[in-house]
Amino acid sequence: MNRMKLQSILRSFFEEDIGDGDLSASTLFPADALGEMNIVAKEPGVFCGADIIREGFHLLNPSIEVVSLFADGEPMENMQLLAKVKGPVRDLLAAERVILNCIQRMSAIASQTAVLVNLLEGTDAKVCDTRKTAPGLRMLDKYAVRAGGGFNHRNGLYDAVMLKDNHLAYAGSITKAVEQLRSRLGHTVKIEVEIESLEQLEEAVQAGADIIMFDNRTPDQIQAWLSIVPEHIITEASGMITEETITSYGKTGIDYISVGALTHSVIAKDISANIHIKKQGDEM
Amino acid sequence: MNRMKLQSILRSFFEEDIGDGDLSASTLFPADALGEMNIVAKEPGVFCGADIIREGFHLLNPSIEVVSLFADGEPMENMQLLAKVKGPVRDLLAAERVILNCIQRMSAIASQTAVLVNLLEGTDAKVCDTRKTAPGLRMLDKYAVRAGGGFNHRNGLYDAVMLKDNHLAYAGSITKAVEQLRSRLGHTVKIEVEIESLEQLEEAVQAGADIIMFDNRTPDQIQAWLSIVPEHIITEASGMITEETITSYGKTGIDYISVGALTHSVIAKDISANIHIKKQGDEM
Amino acid sequence: MNRMKLQSILRSFFEEDIGDGDLSASTLFPADALGEMNIVAKEPGVFCGADIIREGFHLLNPSIEVVSLFADGEPMENMQLLAKVKGPVRDLLAAERVILNCIQRMSAIASQTAVLVNLLEGTDAKVCDTRKTAPGLRMLDKYAVRAGGGFNHRNGLYDAVMLKDNHLAYAGSITKAVEQLRSRLGHTVKIEVEIESLEQLEEAVQAGADIIMFDNRTPDQIQAWLSIVPEHIITEASGMITEETITSYGKTGIDYISVGALTHSVIAKDISANIHIKKQGDEM
Amino acid sequence: MNRMKLQSILRSFFEEDIGDGDLSASTLFPADALGEMNIVAKEPGVFCGADIIREGFHLLNPSIEVVSLFADGEPMENMQLLAKVKGPVRDLLAAERVILNCIQRMSAIASQTAVLVNLLEGTDAKVCDTRKTAPGLRMLDKYAVRAGGGFNHRNGLYDAVMLKDNHLAYAGSITKAVEQLRSRLGHTVKIEVEIESLEQLEEAVQAGADIIMFDNRTPDQIQAWLSIVPEHIITEASGMITEETITSYGKTGIDYISVGALTHSVIAKDISANIHIKKQGDEM
Amino acid sequence: MNRMKLQSILRSFFEEDIGDGDLSASTLFPADALGEMNIVAKEPGVFCGADIIREGFHLLNPSIEVVSLFADGEPMENMQLLAKVKGPVRDLLAAERVILNCIQRMSAIASQTAVLVNLLEGTDAKVCDTRKTAPGLRMLDKYAVRAGGGFNHRNGLYDAVMLKDNHLAYAGSITKAVEQLRSRLGHTVKIEVEIESLEQLEEAVQAGADIIMFDNRTPDQIQAWLSIVPEHIITEASGMITEETITSYGKTGIDYISVGALTHSVIAKDISANIHIKKQGDEM
Amino acid sequence: MNRMKLQSILRSFFEEDIGDGDLSASTLFPADALGEMNIVAKEPGVFCGADIIREGFHLLNPSIEVVSLFADGEPMENMQLLAKVKGPVRDLLAAERVILNCIQRMSAIASQTAVLVNLLEGTDAKVCDTRKTAPGLRMLDKYAVRAGGGFNHRNGLYDAVMLKDNHLAYAGSITKAVEQLRSRLGHTVKIEVEIESLEQLEEAVQAGADIIMFDNRTPDQIQAWLSIVPEHIITEASGMITEETITSYGKTGIDYISVGALTHSVIAKDISANIHIKKQGDEM
Repeated sequence: MNRMKLQSILRSFFEEDIGDGDLSASTLFPADALGEMNIVAKEPGVFCGADIIREGFHLLNPSIEVVSLFADGEPMENMQLLAKVKGPVRDLLAAERVILNCIQRMSAIASQTAVLVNLLEGTDAKVCDTRKTAPGLRMLDKYAVRAGGGFNHRNGLYDAVMLKDNHLAYAGSITKAVEQLRSRLGHTVKIEVEIESLEQLEEAVQAGADIIMFDNRTPDQIQAWLSIVPEHIITEASGMITEETITSYGKTGIDYISVGALTHSVIAKDISANIHIKKQGDEM
Repeated sequence: MNRMKLQSILRSFFEEDIGDGDLSASTLFPADALGEMNIVAKEPGVFCGADIIREGFHLLNPSIEVVSLFADGEPMENMQLLAKVKGPVRDLLAAERVILNCIQRMSAIASQTAVLVNLLEGTDAKVCDTRKTAPGLRMLDKYAVRAGGGFNHRNGLYDAVMLKDNHLAYAGSITKAVEQLRSRLGHTVKIEVEIESLEQLEEAVQAGADIIMFDNRTPDQIQAWLSIVPEHIITEASGMITEETITSYGKTGIDYISVGALTHSVIAKDISANIHIKKQGDEM
Repeated sequence: MNRMKLQSILRSFFEEDIGDGDLSASTLFPADALGEMNIVAKEPGVFCGADIIREGFHLLNPSIEVVSLFADGEPMENMQLLAKVKGPVRDLLAAERVILNCIQRMSAIASQTAVLVNLLEGTDAKVCDTRKTAPGLRMLDKYAVRAGGGFNHRNGLYDAVMLKDNHLAYAGSITKAVEQLRSRLGHTVKIEVEIESLEQLEEAVQAGADIIMFDNRTPDQIQAWLSIVPEHIITEASGMITEETITSYGKTGIDYISVGALTHSVIAKDISANIHIKKQGDEM
Repeated sequence: MNRMKLQSILRSFFEEDIGDGDLSASTLFPADALGEMNIVAKEPGVFCGADIIREGFHLLNPSIEVVSLFADGEPMENMQLLAKVKGPVRDLLAAERVILNCIQRMSAIASQTAVLVNLLEGTDAKVCDTRKTAPGLRMLDKYAVRAGGGFNHRNGLYDAVMLKDNHLAYAGSITKAVEQLRSRLGHTVKIEVEIESLEQLEEAVQAGADIIMFDNRTPDQIQAWLSIVPEHIITEASGMITEETITSYGKTGIDYISVGALTHSVIAKDISANIHIKKQGDEM
Repeated sequence: MNRMKLQSILRSFFEEDIGDGDLSASTLFPADALGEMNIVAKEPGVFCGADIIREGFHLLNPSIEVVSLFADGEPMENMQLLAKVKGPVRDLLAAERVILNCIQRMSAIASQTAVLVNLLEGTDAKVCDTRKTAPGLRMLDKYAVRAGGGFNHRNGLYDAVMLKDNHLAYAGSITKAVEQLRSRLGHTVKIEVEIESLEQLEEAVQAGADIIMFDNRTPDQIQAWLSIVPEHIITEASGMITEETITSYGKTGIDYISVGALTHSVIAKDISANIHIKKQGDEM
Repeated sequence: MNRMKLQSILRSFFEEDIGDGDLSASTLFPADALGEMNIVAKEPGVFCGADIIREGFHLLNPSIEVVSLFADGEPMENMQLLAKVKGPVRDLLAAERVILNCIQRMSAIASQTAVLVNLLEGTDAKVCDTRKTAPGLRMLDKYAVRAGGGFNHRNGLYDAVMLKDNHLAYAGSITKAVEQLRSRLGHTVKIEVEIESLEQLEEAVQAGADIIMFDNRTPDQIQAWLSIVPEHIITEASGMITEETITSYGKTGIDYISVGALTHSVIAKDISANIHIKKQGDEM
């Protein structure tokens, strides 16, 4: 992740939640009251969000001490301590919800990615994401997929080409579309073609697609069709992928399996923050 | 929703996805190629996102025609046409993914809210949300809860007070904490107190809390304890609320039931966009 | 105040005044010339702006040393030293005007608030502000009111409801308007109703308003009418409040008196900055 | 004024006041309810703010019709109609407070400037402003000074040089300071020197200052000292200027009189907005 | 180009040049004075910037009429009329310099690209750009390269991998570096390897680089070495490319020739704007 | 330069180049790998950009150590070490290109300015820039001109007046235009008049222009005409200025010679960065 961009994203998240100030904490705690926060897993999974915790608290107050106890991608068990944070209570409380919202989502994405990666063990297939991320969270969502052992598909409309039926309909044919693209786009841009029939597949291979996506095909179809794809072309399956079906897709010999649900349907991981507030006389 | 803020949020979402340009569409379609997009429900639920569709496409190109066929909060069936959009193909394709990402999430939140609202039918309890929204999407997430028939809890740390155990531990007692707050905060700010025992409840009532939240209590406890709460104090249940348990909570006589999962664990509604591209000779 | 937001506001103020650079100081002082600035009260009042001084200078240069000698809300006398600041002369001079402009205004607001608070001594009435703040300065203006011993009314259109004649005219009656609001807005939102007649007052009480504002009423009217308002409803007087009249309003038994002039008509407090520039040989 | 910058300033003002939405109006008025707003002077003065009204309402909704009845700088009487505005009630109400806050301040600045300009009638002196503007409002504050018949001093630290005692102390002498500046700064930059003694004045004249400011001098001193200033050097008086003293200063023969209070101590002009909401059957 | 991003870039350029307002034009022209501007080539070349002209003037004032007479990439001759623009004089003058600065630079880039493209006629080599663009102008600079018939290399560090000596030194070998990248990066990312020796070339081919860049090699070396590169690997020459040498490089059989000077050393094309201001009585 | 503004400009440049992250370096280097970068001149010239190097690297990572070996404006020779930078390799590589792009341009501008300054040795003429800067880079471009020994013309439309033929045509005459400006603009604003004939020159002198620009005149004309310009009026030559002609212009007695090419046609100075990456066992 680009740290500078992460900071500016987190800044906007804090503005959203804190607004002109935290009415509760700024009224009840003096500016110099100190506290210690433990960030704790409340269910097993794969942790993701160490940078969020560190950069997030430091944005609010550079004097906050953050000790990360888990690296991104590390498996966590219920009740495990993920990070310890020490500093002014006002800042700890102001940052708490935003940071939890981020890491609960990121850990959920990483965890579910890891579930799918495990289901593909023994196959050559890799899990990848899509552009179906929560708006504004693409960098974080995609980072979490990597932390879970998955791979990133293109970042946006700007860094790779995906030829879908609309494009093909207008260009006239896969061949014409790929030709037009090759004649105008730079050599660092890959061209992926979505196909739904054997005929289209053959044309895509001929046309020199870099990546071919089998859209909503059954494992059997994919396995059969893969035989005509030369090794240097990367293949991807998309659509109808669930925890139940992914292993069969993996066994077809496909290279990548893209799963929109990884980022569009996220069940937050339960992670909580407990604060111990220092009273006079406490040692910390 | 504040339309000006909605526009600025959508603008940032488009920048995230489009970057320096849509490599595929800007290469394959001339600037004047026109198309028509149908936005269609692919599963039943409660629609939310009419403003996103209209403002989103207009941001990309004010000349795009948008016909909304569903109002926010209206139930939708599989295959129903939600909106028709007409304009330059390049703009339709550039906007498609961002708009779908938004309305799939918002419709999911509205739909799940409606499910819970239905489970409370016949009780006086209302469903409400929390601050556990996707970072950056609070305005949209909370709007969707309203569209589904739910209510909004506080927007952020800045517009209401929520007294939790940390605050109370430092202040010494609920009474002292409420006093401190009343002596410093304006009269438009409500004070909500989280309680976990009958003793705390009694103190919160005495202290003059505006709202009392029963945190992680069983329906039986809540029902018993409610008898000592005077009518002008609003009550809220939180924690352990699921589709299975919510009806029992509703029957206790509680006023509001807050559900974090409404916004932190969202299963996107399937909504898709089909584009018909005008060829020479087509009438549109 | 939200420190992160304060920093971003101050940053925009500095950009406004400094632009591409301070022609005078950057030409006449080398980057390493050091100076010491004394910020001094030139008339009595209530000081407000310690955070502005500290965050402001640190934004320009984190190495600047700031010693605050006055807390916000503390009374200051003519010629008293409010803060001492040490660092590169270029930065001290670049920040000077913006910081003075802020603290002269904030101290003026705090001082005038304190004047009104004193005039209410012996009564139960509290002074509060309005949304008539200088555009862009709401967070600072409202903070200064609190520093002067006053209270904040709602922050904006988003955090409380104020029912005025327009709203009522359309809804048909106070009762209908309050019902509509209660049926749609969350339970953390207070509803305030502006009334101008006894009849309206009675209806507002019946309708369950949280706060009732007596708009442009005489102290006598207010005192008489208050007798029908139950204790749990908060009352507010607004309009025709001056230094001359406020005590009579305070004696009516009203809870809050809101004064737009606190923030829309501010006579800057005279506060100045004297810089001593270190010459070679000076000890500092 | 730069309209693009005005729009971006106004946008930030609206975000400050409206936040995630106007709870009152968006609940009580349907999106298609129309209204007509009259903006009316409630006291005499000099109007300023026609651009604010037009651009402000159009930012919220380009379909709003704005009819300006007063030009900036035109004298207004109590009860005169300044502008008529027609459009969706929700937008009229959302924009009202921000627009009034702006034009009440700007009209106040223009009015007070006009008062001082009148007091200088018959003299050659002109009134000008300073950098003591409300932070974030410099463009508006300085525009209002021009509308009232005044002149603008430098916009910020970046567009002219002002030599004060600090600068002089370090440079060693006025002569050296001016020389240093001339040897480094471009030819479009004017150099103003603040003087407090006849000796300094003589040196400033010799050194070739473009503008000489008499700081905190009496009218008599100024009149006497002006005799040694050649015609092509512009002179300015500053400090101790009030409505009582300004005429004597004007009679000295000074060219400009700068008055910080014009923008740092502003008593808002009373201007109000009355909304008539269209009911079914009304003609508008 | 992403039009929304173009608008936001242009807005920042106008803020830079116009600041708080155009002192000259806003003083000398009334708001309703109209004018007609002709944008004219003053030397031959390849035009680029039609979107800048249209979007730029429309940002300042949507009512301005813009007639584009040249498409991007079209050759222009001295004295040819490129565009006609009609609207308020104040807006025409305020926009003039920024728009000229943009299109003079973009036309220069397009023209010089076209010069190199012509020098490669008869070869299979294509001209491409680098990341050596003027900071903040990458989208415009790269667009201009395309308009001149060139191709775009990667947009930034985020959309393709370029392995240079530093990376290789740390990874240990090209093979290891490519392996590491393939095991972590998504399948839409191309890997380019910079090589300086035949040995490195062989390793890069073996390692499965997508693109191989011959860094600072002579045409003879390249031609010799190309024989061992399989057809599906794209080749690029970089370094020591000038108008004098490019044809020899093109004849080697290389696929792409990247030229930093296209964007880091730009000699502005002379394009000027003549304004005819409408006087009363003129027909326009 | 305003450091706060410099930081915000640099931040936007880094966002442009780094996007969501540096794919190459973040994959191949661990976060704690350290390196040392030498920034080295590859051709002679005048260095400019020390602030860019320091602030740029510190923005990415405040722990990076930067040792500047050259001051802005200092002459550099081929192979001279300009700065040494030490820190995390990831950050060094992420910042490298942006920083080089900036300092290659700024050093080029400074160097070419110095060339012209040298050509004017022995004359009283000074070199100055124009508003023909790369959009978004005005502060940097103009700073570089000063570093090279040149002077800055006005920053933008907002800080000085330049009367051109358009303005004069509308106003009716130079005299009328200057009068109008004097009667409305503040006393810190200089008025420059562009003239093309002796008649215009005479009128400009009479009208009291502060600066007179001889537009596209020959050295002979200028020399002849200068005799009628009183000493206190500053003169400027513009148009047809090249390395070949500038000395003749300088000898005319003109005060300033403005050269658009200094910033609109910049041939980047070759400056490169070599990174030594620390391996285990290395001492650094």
